[in-house]
Parts: sequence; C-alpha cells; structure tokens
Amino acid sequence: MSLNQLGVVKRNIVRADKAAVEKLSRFGVATVHEAMGRVGLMKPYMRPIYKGAKMCGTAVTILLQPGDNWMMHVAAEQLQPGDVAVAACTTDNFDGFFGDLLATSFQARGAMGLIIDAGVRDVDELEKMGFPVFSRAIHAKGTIKATLGSVNIPVVCAGALVNPGDVVIADTDGIVVVPAAIAQQVADAAEARESFEGEKRAKFAAGVLGLDMYKMREPLEKAGLKYID
Amino acid sequence: MSLNQLGVVKRNIVRADKAAVEKLSRFGVATVHEAMGRVGLMKPYMRPIYKGAKMCGTAVTILLQPGDNWMMHVAAEQLQPGDVAVAACTTDNFDGFFGDLLATSFQARGAMGLIIDAGVRDVDELEKMGFPVFSRAIHAKGTIKATLGSVNIPVVCAGALVNPGDVVIADTDGIVVVPAAIAQQVADAAEARESFEGEKRAKFAAGVLGLDMYKMREPLEKAGLKYID
Amino acid sequence: MSLNQLGVVKRNIVRADKAAVEKLSRFGVATVHEAMGRVGLMKPYMRPIYKGAKMCGTAVTILLQPGDNWMMHVAAEQLQPGDVAVAACTTDNFDGFFGDLLATSFQARGAMGLIIDAGVRDVDELEKMGFPVFSRAIHAKGTIKATLGSVNIPVVCAGALVNPGDVVIADTDGIVVVPAAIAQQVADAAEARESFEGEKRAKFAAGVLGLDMYKMREPLEKAGLKYID
Amino acid sequence: MSLNQLGVVKRNIVRADKAAVEKLSRFGVATVHEAMGRVGLMKPYMRPIYKGAKMCGTAVTILLQPGDNWMMHVAAEQLQPGDVAVAACTTDNFDGFFGDLLATSFQARGAMGLIIDAGVRDVDELEKMGFPVFSRAIHAKGTIKATLGSVNIPVVCAGALVNPGDVVIADTDGIVVVPAAIAQQVADAAEARESFEGEKRAKFAAGVLGLDMYKMREPLEKAGLKYID
Amino acid sequence: MSLNQLGVVKRNIVRADKAAVEKLSRFGVATVHEAMGRVGLMKPYMRPIYKGAKMCGTAVTILLQPGDNWMMHVAAEQLQPGDVAVAACTTDNFDGFFGDLLATSFQARGAMGLIIDAGVRDVDELEKMGFPVFSRAIHAKGTIKATLGSVNIPVVCAGALVNPGDVVIADTDGIVVVPAAIAQQVADAAEARESFEGEKRAKFAAGVLGLDMYKMREPLEKAGLKYID
Amino acid sequence: MSLNQLGVVKRNIVRADKAAVEKLSRFGVATVHEAMGRVGLMKPYMRPIYKGAKMCGTAVTILLQPGDNWMMHVAAEQLQPGDVAVAACTTDNFDGFFGDLLATSFQARGAMGLIIDAGVRDVDELEKMGFPVFSRAIHAKGTIKATLGSVNIPVVCAGALVNPGDVVIADTDGIVVVPAAIAQQVADAAEARESFEGEKRAKFAAGVLGLDMYKMREPLEKAGLKYID
Repeated sequence: MSLNQLGVVKRNIVRADKAAVEKLSRFGVATVHEAMGRVGLMKPYMRPIYKGAKMCGTAVTILLQPGDNWMMHVAAEQLQPGDVAVAACTTDNFDGFFGDLLATSFQARGAMGLIIDAGVRDVDELEKMGFPVFSRAIHAKGTIKATLGSVNIPVVCAGALVNPGDVVIADTDGIVVVPAAIAQQVADAAEARESFEGEKRAKFAAGVLGLDMYKMREPLEKAGLKYID
Repeated sequence: MSLNQLGVVKRNIVRADKAAVEKLSRFGVATVHEAMGRVGLMKPYMRPIYKGAKMCGTAVTILLQPGDNWMMHVAAEQLQPGDVAVAACTTDNFDGFFGDLLATSFQARGAMGLIIDAGVRDVDELEKMGFPVFSRAIHAKGTIKATLGSVNIPVVCAGALVNPGDVVIADTDGIVVVPAAIAQQVADAAEARESFEGEKRAKFAAGVLGLDMYKMREPLEKAGLKYID
Repeated sequence: MSLNQLGVVKRNIVRADKAAVEKLSRFGVATVHEAMGRVGLMKPYMRPIYKGAKMCGTAVTILLQPGDNWMMHVAAEQLQPGDVAVAACTTDNFDGFFGDLLATSFQARGAMGLIIDAGVRDVDELEKMGFPVFSRAIHAKGTIKATLGSVNIPVVCAGALVNPGDVVIADTDGIVVVPAAIAQQVADAAEARESFEGEKRAKFAAGVLGLDMYKMREPLEKAGLKYID
Repeated sequence: MSLNQLGVVKRNIVRADKAAVEKLSRFGVATVHEAMGRVGLMKPYMRPIYKGAKMCGTAVTILLQPGDNWMMHVAAEQLQPGDVAVAACTTDNFDGFFGDLLATSFQARGAMGLIIDAGVRDVDELEKMGFPVFSRAIHAKGTIKATLGSVNIPVVCAGALVNPGDVVIADTDGIVVVPAAIAQQVADAAEARESFEGEKRAKFAAGVLGLDMYKMREPLEKAGLKYID
Repeated sequence: MSLNQLGVVKRNIVRADKAAVEKLSRFGVATVHEAMGRVGLMKPYMRPIYKGAKMCGTAVTILLQPGDNWMMHVAAEQLQPGDVAVAACTTDNFDGFFGDLLATSFQARGAMGLIIDAGVRDVDELEKMGFPVFSRAIHAKGTIKATLGSVNIPVVCAGALVNPGDVVIADTDGIVVVPAAIAQQVADAAEARESFEGEKRAKFAAGVLGLDMYKMREPLEKAGLKYID
Repeated sequence: MSLNQLGVVKRNIVRADKAAVEKLSRFGVATVHEAMGRVGLMKPYMRPIYKGAKMCGTAVTILLQPGDNWMMHVAAEQLQPGDVAVAACTTDNFDGFFGDLLATSFQARGAMGLIIDAGVRDVDELEKMGFPVFSRAIHAKGTIKATLGSVNIPVVCAGALVNPGDVVIADTDGIVVVPAAIAQQVADAAEARESFEGEKRAKFAAGVLGLDMYKMREPLEKAGLKYID
C-alpha cells in the first residue's frame, strides 16, 4: 500500500511487540532518539496541549483532508488498547479536527492519546479527561465530514514517516517514531544509554567538567581553539 | 462611520443585549462558533497570557498605531462594566502596548478583559490581578503616546471584524465574535447544541462508535471507502 | 577582538559591578528596558521553558555552530557564580543544544541560568532542578561535538548585542541586556521609575483616568481627536 | 447581510462609480492609501504571482471553505467587466483554489484579476494569459467542490474588510481597498497628493535635503536630537 | 533499509522506467498530482531559485546533517544522467549547502537539477549555468564536511516521502513525487486528464460557465445555496 | 557610545579604506563571508527588491522607531558618495519606511543603496532608478515623523552587528558585513580564495569528483560510511 493512497482503511496491522513498547515507555524522547542514532523526531512545532501530557503506544495512522474530520470516526473503530492515533493532513491546516466527544470515543477504545499535525479544540476538557494530545495548533474552528482520507496507511506527520504499528513516544521534549521492526533493539539501546546518565550527573554535580570527563581538551586544541586573557 | 477611520472616538455605542451576553457566557467558544454556522473566529495565533484566562463581554474597539498606546487611555474612559476591550493595529506590531497600570484602570472601569492583536507585558501581574488578556505576543517593549488612532469604530482584529457592542467570547480554544444583532439567536442555538452533548458523550463513553451514532457507514461506502486486510 | 571571531576563548572578562547586578535583579525586564531608554531587548520569540523561570546575572557568551554543542562544555569552565550563559548560533538552528547533564554542570559552577537563541531539551528535568532557561525552541534533537565556535566574544543573541560581562535580566516579559558600563546608572533609573508605580496604581484603582493623570486631553484635542455620539 | 454568512449569493451589488474607479486606476497603492489617511491595506504577505501584475476594479467577494473552490464557479457568474474577484477563506489555507481554466472563465466575464488570501496554481499560464493574481501562496494542491461558502457578502481578506462593490487596487507595493462610498473623494485626494510629487522629486534630485524641504531641523532639535563628532 | 539510517550509501537503486519518466516530463506538476489522486506534493515553501526553473527525473536521495554538506560530494558519484538530486536534512536548517562548484559537478554527471529542503547559494551562477534548483532558502552561509548522513535511503523532503528511483517533477507550481512503481500508470492518467483541458478551455473562453459545464446548479441548490437581490 | 543610544547623530565616522572597499566589491557575498571565516552574514529573510540588485559600500547606520521614518531624513545629510544606508528598527516592523522620494535624495548624495530590516515601497520606481534595496518586506504602509532614533551608532540589523564605516556587501546570495578594521585583510583573503575557483570548476566540469579532488574517501571511510548494493 503506497504512501498517501486515499479512500483506504487497513484493518490488520502489525503492531510493535508489546514488551518492547512497554520498555520504550520508560525512557524520554531525547534518550530514545539518541538510541536510534539521532533520527526519527517530528518537527518541534508540535507541542503538548497541556503541561505534563505524555504517551507511548503503537500507531494507528490517519490521513485527513483539510477542514474534514470524517476519517477520525473511521479510525476510532481501528483503535485498540495501547494505540496512539497519529493524524496527518494532505495540506497545512490548523482547524480543530478533534475535541472532547471524539476523545471520549478514543479513550473508550483504549487509545493512549493523539498526535495531530493540525489543530484541536476543547483542550480544557481534554486535560480534565487526562487524554494527552500533541498538536501544531489549538483552534475552535470546526470541520465537516465530506471527503475520504485513509486509515492505517504510511503517513508523513510533522516531518516524520509513520507506518501503522510503529511505536510513537511523546513527552515535553517532542515526539519520536520508532519503526516496529527495531523497537526492541532501540529499547535496549535506550536502556544502555540511560544507565550511564546517573554516574555522569553525579560527576557534573561534583564539579567535574565535561572537558575532562569526555577528554575534550586535546581534540579542542588540535582543532585550533585558543585561550586568550 | 467607515472602517479604520482615524482620530475618532464614538461615545454612544449599541451594546448587545445583557441577557444574551449572560447566556452566551455559559458556552465555550467552539460551541458558540458552531452555533453561528462555523464562522466568526479570530486567528489561532491569539493565545491567553495565562492558563485559565477567559472572558465574555461587549466590545469597545480600539485602533492602535504601531508602537503607540495613546488610544488605550482614550478607550479607558469609554469602558463600562461588562465590556471587553478589543484592540487592533494598523500594521503588524508586537510591542507591549498594555501592562499592569492600564489593567488596573480598565479593571476599575469594570472591563472583563482585553483582546489585542499585538503584544502585552507585566503578564505575571496581570495574572495575579485576574485580568484576562489574549494577545499575539508577550513583549516588554514599551510604546509612546504620539499618534491618533480611534475608539469604537469597526476594526479587523486577528482576521475577524469587530463592531463596537458585539459580543466577544474568549477561552482556551480561541476567540469568537458574535454580532450584537444576532446575540440572542446565537445564544439559543448554542444552548440547543449543548443539550445534545451530554447524551452523545455518554454513548461514546459506552463504546458506541461515531460511525454508528451518526450513521456514517453507508455514506462512507458510497463515497468509495474500501476496507482491506 | 572583533565580533564572531571563531575558535577563541577569552578567560578574563570584566563583569558588571556586583552591587549593580544585585540592584537590577529587583526590577522587572519591562522596567529596566524603560530605564535604559526603551532599548536592549531580545526578540519576543525567546520564551521561558517553564512558568516562573527568571534570572539576573553577568553574561558569559557562547557562539555555537549549527547542530554542535561543543562550546557549551568549553563555556562551563568559564562560568563563575552569578553568571548567566548566553548562547548565540552562527545560523538559525532549533536543535536541543542543552539538557539536564549540562545544566547540572552549569549549576555546579554557580550559573544563574541559560539564554539560548536555539533549542533545548530535558525541560521537565530542568524545571525540577530549578535551572531557568529561555530559548526559541524545545527540541529533543541531539547535537555533535565537532566544530569550533567561541566563548566570551561579543555575540548577537535574538537580535541583541551581548558583550561578556553585561547584565542579562530575564522574566516572563522577555530579556534585556544592560551594558556593564552603565549597569549602576540603569539600576538607579529603574529604582526611580519603580517608585512612582505604586502611586499611579492606586490612582488608577480609584478610577482616575490616564487621560487626566497624564493630562492628555489637551494634546489629544490638538492632535485632532474628535468625539462623536 | 452579516459578515461571513454562509450559503448566500447576492446578485445586485452597488459598484463604486466608474469614473472614480478609472481615476483611482491612475495612482499607485501607496499614494491611494496615503490619500485615505494611511489605512485600508491588506497584509504584505500578499504578493503578485508574476512581475508587473497590477489591477484596479470593483470587488466581487467570495468566501471559500478550506480545500474547496466550489464558490469560485458560483462567483464567475456574478462577475461583470471591470470587476476584481476577492477571495477570502474561513481558515488559513494554502491550497491552489484557482488555475488557468477558471482564469479563462473569469477573463471571459471581463474580470480584471483575482485577489486571494490562499493559494493558486498554473501561474506560468496565468502570466501568459495576462491575468493578474495576488495571493499568499503558489501551490499545485487541488481542491474539491463540496461545501457552501458565499458570494458578495462582506469578507475579511488578508486583514482588510472588503464589501462587494468596493474599489480594489493592487500593484507591486501591495493592495488597498477603497470603500465605494468614498471612491471619488479618495481619487481626488490621491490626485492632489500626486501633484506635489514631481516638484519634490526634482528638489531631492538637485540635492535639497528633506531636513530643509520639510523644515525638520527645528522640531528635531526640540525633540532633543544631538549631533556629536 | 529503514528511513533515516545514517552512514549508508546505496549504490544500486531501481530507477523508474525511462519511458514513463519521459512521458511524465510533458505534464505540469498540478496535472500529475491530480492524476495521482491529489497527493504527493511537497510543501509550498519550496520555490525555484530562478524564474523558469523546472525539471523531471529520477531521485537520488541525500540526507544531510545541519551545516554540513559532506554527503553532497558522496551523492555526486551516485548520480546518473536523468537523475534529480533530492536533499533532506535531519533538522530545519537554512545554510547554503550547494553552490556553483557542486552544480558543475552534478551537471557533469548528467543530473537534471536539485531539490533541497534547506538553503543554496551562488544562485546567479546557477541560473547562468541553467542548473535548476528548488529550495526553501537562499543563503550565503557556508557549510563544513564533518558528519555522516546517507545517500539513497528513503527521506522525508519538505513533507513528502521520497524513495530513491522515484520520479520527481518540479515546475513553478511546486514539486510532486511519483513512486517508481506507478510512474507509467500516473503518466497515462495525466495524459487522459490533459486531453480534456483544451476543450474545457475553449468553452470557458466562449463564456460557458463552470456552473453549466459541470452541471453544478442542482447540487448547489440541494446544498442550500440561496440567491438574493 | 553604547549600542542603541537614542537621539544621537554622529557626524564623523571612520569609513573603511576606499581601496579595500573597491577590492571587496569584486567578490560575491558567499566568497567574502568564507574569507572572513564563515561569519558576518545577515539573516536570509533579507531579499533584494528587484532581480540583479547588488551593492558594496561603507555603512551609514540608522536606528528607526516602529512606523516612523524621521531618521531617514536625518541620515540623508550624513551620506557621502560610496556609502550604503543600513537601517535597523527597535522592534519588528514591516511598514514601508522608504520610497522613491527618499531614494532620489539618497542617490543625489551618492549613496550606493539601502539595507533595511523593515519594509519599503515604490519598488517599481526604485528599480527604474537603479537604486538597489534589500529589505525584509515590501509594504505600501506609510510612516510618520514623530520619534527620535539615531544615526551612525552601532546597530543590529537582521541579526548582524553593523558599525558605521563597516563595509556592507549585498548580492543575490545575501548580505555580509566586514568590519572596517579588517576590510583589506578580508579582501585579500577573498582574492586568494577566488583564485582557486576557476581551476576547481574546470576539474568538476571534466567529471572529477569532489570525493577525489578533496581526498574525502579515506576520512569518509574512517567516519564509518558504508556502501551497500
């Protein structure tokens, strides 16, 4: 199934391994993206709609048409517990495609949250419900239900390719997409990376400089850095 | 009096009916804009300067010149209890036209808050005072008092036409302008709309899908939606 | 030393007088910038990464290369208690140059916070640590350590010239830079300005209009303002 | 008929006086907006799609829905020789609502050009046809025909209120809207203003300074300007 | 090979069928994207660096690091006659990654042009050479050669997924990506679509309205459109 | 004199050496900025107002207030043959501060052109006059003459520090500022750099790859680049 194909809903998708998803959920977005080799991030214009919003789950993808949220309802039926809805749009659009009613439906299906490269509304209610959303805009503008998009096709959302079933992790630092096939491997790499953090933090707190901890003085000198008074 | 006429203050304006304003104040911006037929919103770049800021009142309009807040003082005298100050500028400008002193004056006049398509400052103090402001920027940059704008002429603020006396409602989802002449009618439509929300929310919470609640399956099939496995 | 010279670290810089810095720390950014004659502000796209972040201190300046935070570690060694790190970049870049490990190091050196015309990450941890940061973006994107920039040269950060040793004050309203040589003079002017605020606020609260308090009615009439009914 | 009312086409509109339009067409946008008192301009993000595009005519207004150009066809029927089509959208949208086929139709109706606060396409063909367009974007993205907007209601286009029948003038410097009721008066003021330009230009070319021509030296000194060496 | 994998160059890629590419080169971007079902476009911030720039060819993809154009030289070796270089970056960056020397090299390899989601320089020389480039910025800022990216992996460029070997078509209206596997099918659909254009244009020129040509009057009435006088 | 001091005109400034300026005028902006060590550029949002605009000269600096072009007239008197006017503003402002009358005056004084971090108008006339301007906006919006700025103080213009007398070079690729003190040295470095370009271009044209010309294959392998089939 090719990217951006319209009018299609794929019902059976291969979700990333549950254990890998659970393990990934323990790490922050910055750590996971470093563990992947510093790739996989969405653009920083995507922001949580309330302080503390975060989520980790498997992607059910949605391709929307501008000003039209029909596919949101189609997507609801495809959501399973542990899924994250990931909505892209065929063009830049800031309308409010999603509010508290759809959130009630998504939550009833067991969804962990929504990532949407467009706008949402009813954000106070969404916070009260504890339904996390990351979006590019908050906008009261309503939408219609007239044109077909797709569900569970590969989409480009905020600059990142998302395949249905991929792991999507979002926290205050941003959003990272981990391809389902390498979820376990990335989770392990994140764990390894995290294990060194505590020790480093203690050293920094004790006044050790990164210059010494990472042995940077020699390479800096070689690169030509000059100290003057 | 034509749009954007400079150097004019209109003293007697026709404010929307108080009962209609009171009724509109019970509904959110998203609901009111839907009740109006999905129009009347300002651009989503307008954001509250603190969490929880909201207001509903009748517009006293202000047309500012760039970097000049003289008309804010002129406007203060025209404010009555229940009014919302709505400030536009003759060009894009992000300076801080408004701070805690003017807010004290506006609050003493009984104003409900300020909507400004420009910048404001002293935002911590404004929050402590409980004086809600929606703006396009927060900026410490001060302004002068040298050039005439106008008060209580029709203005375009953040993409929306505002006539003095119109109802302006602002909450976390955005800002909507309801023409004074249709305020009661829109309030009634909002109430009708709201009355269905609880029932729908209960159904969604119980797991009913929008596909079934709104009988979308047949129109989706007609539109050509295909399910694949 | 000319602006933007690369590959240089200046060790001995002349910091603004401690007493002047202490005095400046009592005033808000809006007040200080007014006391300087309404200049010295950074652009309003710079925002605190958490509510309530604020700082006042002497600048240690950093010039970064895009996607490279090597100079952050070089700068750490130059930080003294009471300093604020001020980081510019040779081009627009939104990567996360700074996180909780570097913050631990900066905090151990006695730094008051970071102003960075680029992105940062680990913002929840930075809030927990109470390490204030003002940035143009929050972005999990990691950086490398490969190219020389400089430390303690004059830099242009978010539109403002910052010389090492200048006083940098940041609060919710923005960021202002006070040249070291005039720090005491600006602090005194800010104090004088502040002393009138309380009285004015009381008058405004009592319902006195700015039109009368500032004797604006005559100049407004001279400028041609017309009142109509 | 209120602003933004959807689903309405007004057939009989009062167009500005033909002689006034003809006279206004002799002046540039900058001159006309000065003659109106420095108001009436659209935002500067509106740009001509080809070098040299310009137009002057009476507005037929169009309110579009995002991603939907149905109303363009409805508007075509309302266009008369000498009209300028002015299209606003209910939300920010950059899709290509207009191309060479619609331009052929508009041109056949005698339209002078199109002002659109959205995107257009086929811009090479539009240039070859000599059909001037000012837009906020060029985008190949096609649109659908499914939702009602309106024709010949007041619209806010790129920050300016446009009533059907108003005079719209566009050239390389931007776009200005002259209310129909004051078209003749503005045309006369523009002519008066223009008449002084040649003389001033000659003086400037001969080396006379604005400081002397406009007698600015004394007010500058009064304002406190200091010359130093 | 997964999206965004770093440090990899794929030498053997499957390019779209030459006949299909040749056929696609006869159509404009707007036509091709309609023929694909209205998908596949890059964002409209991508613009040609000179008037008349256009290209059609098979993609050799490049993933760049911010401020680093090392991979451009690696990519040069992979270019074959008829290829279009398509460069994405791991983060938003506006530096000038490409100038006349690299263009000379790419042209010597037979490349048709460059699509780059970043900046370029030497644009006057590029125009003289007749080497078309579409970019998001023009910027003299130079880059270094220090960090690995990749060549011929799938990339997201300006919001569109591009696989090596896909057909990329760029003209004044924008840029469209046609997956290699469906190139012939899309070319045929574009041809069919184009064949109707001439006839329609003639009808529009003769004054026939779209309302009648497309039989819109009845559906408009059903949708509730009202004509008033 | 400190940065941004308002209400001051410095009459005697030290202009860069004429021979150095003349020599610098032979090179493009990209070359000069590389010769300076890849620094000194203004932001890429600054664009020429007509194709082919370019200039090289010594800076007379202007600090403007928003919506006020009074200082432009003050600056005219300070312009000498060979100067470039460089105008910054105390805040972001897109108004048209400059048009054909001022250009006539500046041209009569011998100015080479204008760099302005704001808007200009009358751009068609400016092109006809051959008076080059680089700006961030084209906007018909007029300005007033009411507030003091300064002339010939250091200013930050589009992200670059400009001291009066510095060399400013602008062409299609952007704008670079060369401090007066190092103008000759940078001119020599630019010449040296340019001398290698012809040879390199010939090699690239003959099909030599950068990989071989710059001996990149070994460092790429060391960095870990992998070729796969």
